[in-house]
Amino acid sequence: MQEVYINLGPRSYSIHIGPGLLPRLGEYLRGFPFTRRALLVTNPTVGSLYASVVEAALAGAGFEVIRSEMPDGEEYKILATAEKLYDLAYTRELDRRSPVVALGGGVVGDLAGFVAATYLRGVPFIQVPTTLLAQVDSSVGGKVAVNHPRGKNIIGAFYQPRLVLADLGVLKTLDPREVRAGLAEVIKYGIIADGGFFTWLEENLEDLLALDAEALTHAVAVSCRIKAQVVREDETEQGRRAILNFGHTVGHAVEALTGYAAYRHGEAVAMGMVAAARLAVALDMLKEGEAARIERLIRRAGLPVEMPAGLSPDELLDSMRRDKKVLAGRLTFVLPVAVGRVEIVRDVPEEAVRRLLISAGTKGDPGGGR
Amino acid sequence: MQEVYINLGPRSYSIHIGPGLLPRLGEYLRGFPFTRRALLVTNPTVGSLYASVVEAALAGAGFEVIRSEMPDGEEYKILATAEKLYDLAYTRELDRRSPVVALGGGVVGDLAGFVAATYLRGVPFIQVPTTLLAQVDSSVGGKVAVNHPRGKNIIGAFYQPRLVLADLGVLKTLDPREVRAGLAEVIKYGIIADGGFFTWLEENLEDLLALDAEALTHAVAVSCRIKAQVVREDETEQGRRAILNFGHTVGHAVEALTGYAAYRHGEAVAMGMVAAARLAVALDMLKEGEAARIERLIRRAGLPVEMPAGLSPDELLDSMRRDKKVLAGRLTFVLPVAVGRVEIVRDVPEEAVRRLLISAGTKGDPGGGR
Repeated sequence: MQEVYINLGPRSYSIHIGPGLLPRLGEYLRGFPFTRRALLVTNPTVGSLYASVVEAALAGAGFEVIRSEMPDGEEYKILATAEKLYDLAYTRELDRRSPVVALGGGVVGDLAGFVAATYLRGVPFIQVPTTLLAQVDSSVGGKVAVNHPRGKNIIGAFYQPRLVLADLGVLKTLDPREVRAGLAEVIKYGIIADGGFFTWLEENLEDLLALDAEALTHAVAVSCRIKAQVVREDETEQGRRAILNFGHTVGHAVEALTGYAAYRHGEAVAMGMVAAARLAVALDMLKEGEAARIERLIRRAGLPVEMPAGLSPDELLDSMRRDKKVLAGRLTFVLPVAVGRVEIVRDVPEEAVRRLLISAGTKGDPGGGR
Repeated sequence: MQEVYINLGPRSYSIHIGPGLLPRLGEYLRGFPFTRRALLVTNPTVGSLYASVVEAALAGAGFEVIRSEMPDGEEYKILATAEKLYDLAYTRELDRRSPVVALGGGVVGDLAGFVAATYLRGVPFIQVPTTLLAQVDSSVGGKVAVNHPRGKNIIGAFYQPRLVLADLGVLKTLDPREVRAGLAEVIKYGIIADGGFFTWLEENLEDLLALDAEALTHAVAVSCRIKAQVVREDETEQGRRAILNFGHTVGHAVEALTGYAAYRHGEAVAMGMVAAARLAVALDMLKEGEAARIERLIRRAGLPVEMPAGLSPDELLDSMRRDKKVLAGRLTFVLPVAVGRVEIVRDVPEEAVRRLLISAGTKGDPGGGR
């Protein structure tokens, strides 16, 4: 078991990481000044496996639990679903100190977090992420959001949880494809900030894929610490935090143009990281050998390294220009200069990006994970 | 002209108060790192009077202005209206540094502020309040929200503006009933925190009702300073900030049960302040003479002092129990102990409130402002 303390002054909180933590949720909540009615948000898949354990844990700490299951999928992470939760919270008279507990992956966490951030102008938010991606990504940073019909996470807030419980035991029931998608973000942390951790990943990838508890605890804790360090310097994403978007400029565009359905977020990020590494080589910022290491580890993790055939470079570029990190229409990329260090490059020549996309588009998807 | 500086660390901002400020909005914005496209949110009434002045001011500072008019009224301060603004912002490619400018009263400010707080997880928010109520209330505190079908301001956030411009000249075109409703909140600041200011109001009420610029500047600036002092001690409303809700427990219930249509917010608060003063007398917390001073000033301002006939005490009590400041069903009131000082009283005996409501209900509404 490891605890990562996220130091944000009055908004500080702890992430507890390890196997077998779900039944202990009640204990962790005892010290908080919450009223004893909790809204548990989950989805049918996760709910059928783990909601009863969590409910028992909450009941053991004196909570009356109101469970709400939302359908699984980004397409339900919308204001209409949030409204159902507002209705339920209001009808069941949840007050400002009633915690909202998110039990699920990123979709459940983003939506429940958005509701927690906005119901009564903010109620306590507890995260119990059940995917590797959510454990290493949503646990830190306070990003909550719902999708707009034409763009992902367009409506949201920065809102910190009061506690995160990352139970690694639940990964055993997770689709292995989801585990690999989560590893994409773990690999990302190595590339953007910690070459030593990247080397550790190269050496321990098989243990991670086999869901070894010790290896997972280390990987999740290091990932959360790296993200926390980046976020602490820049809580509301004005500058340096953008390095966390490594792989996301292309990744988001691929997701948007494939309707958020064909690829897992981590798979799209994997393609984006390889694309960014190749772009960095094309711009003489990164050695080819380093790009090859990045591509090799991503491929070993069972993740796609080529973009899907058939996406038009013009559509991709148009989508990138609309990315919410773009300011005044300039194309910005996070590009590696070595394994363990990235730079934010504004005004990347559109021609270089176009050449990369055309070359990717004609290659098809030999290494894809679908 | 007066400037009130709201010191909130990295979220600090200034309120500029005085006549003739609208044409200077562009100058005030020059120093900010905003991109040059602004979303101006207003309503048809205010828009027809002042939008062109504000647009010219913004254009003078290099801004392209996208104007959106929402229908006037609390019933349009809902998620559906917010969604139209998200659509517009996204379609017109507003980015994270594009300011949202609210030109209007509390409804426009709350809705535009909620959109600013949540679009792309937060974009710069500029307030140009055009009612006295919005100038003294919404300018400080960072509360933004939309209504839920069954409750006011149930969905919202704490989100600070980057600048507030309170032009007192616009009050000349405001319905005098709205001016009086705004004075209810001004009087509230005297009662909760500043007996000297209350005395000044007793002596200068006629100048305020006549919209004398100097008197208004003083009253608005003192009101903002009092609110700022209370809010600074308690930015997210955990404790002492509740004193700002003086008059609001009963006021909100009256508004809810009359469909937010019969009374202006300030009128409902006026009734609520008188009710709270009487309750304080009944509980032996306040001298009758002090309650009489409160009631007299409110009456002189042309505001209602009696609750509307026909509301059932049970419905009122039920509505108060649902107030979002209520924790775990306890009835909490802010009650004056003198002109200039209030206390937060938890567990007010329901019987005392019921007696007060029954006596009010049988009296009808002799002093009402309708």
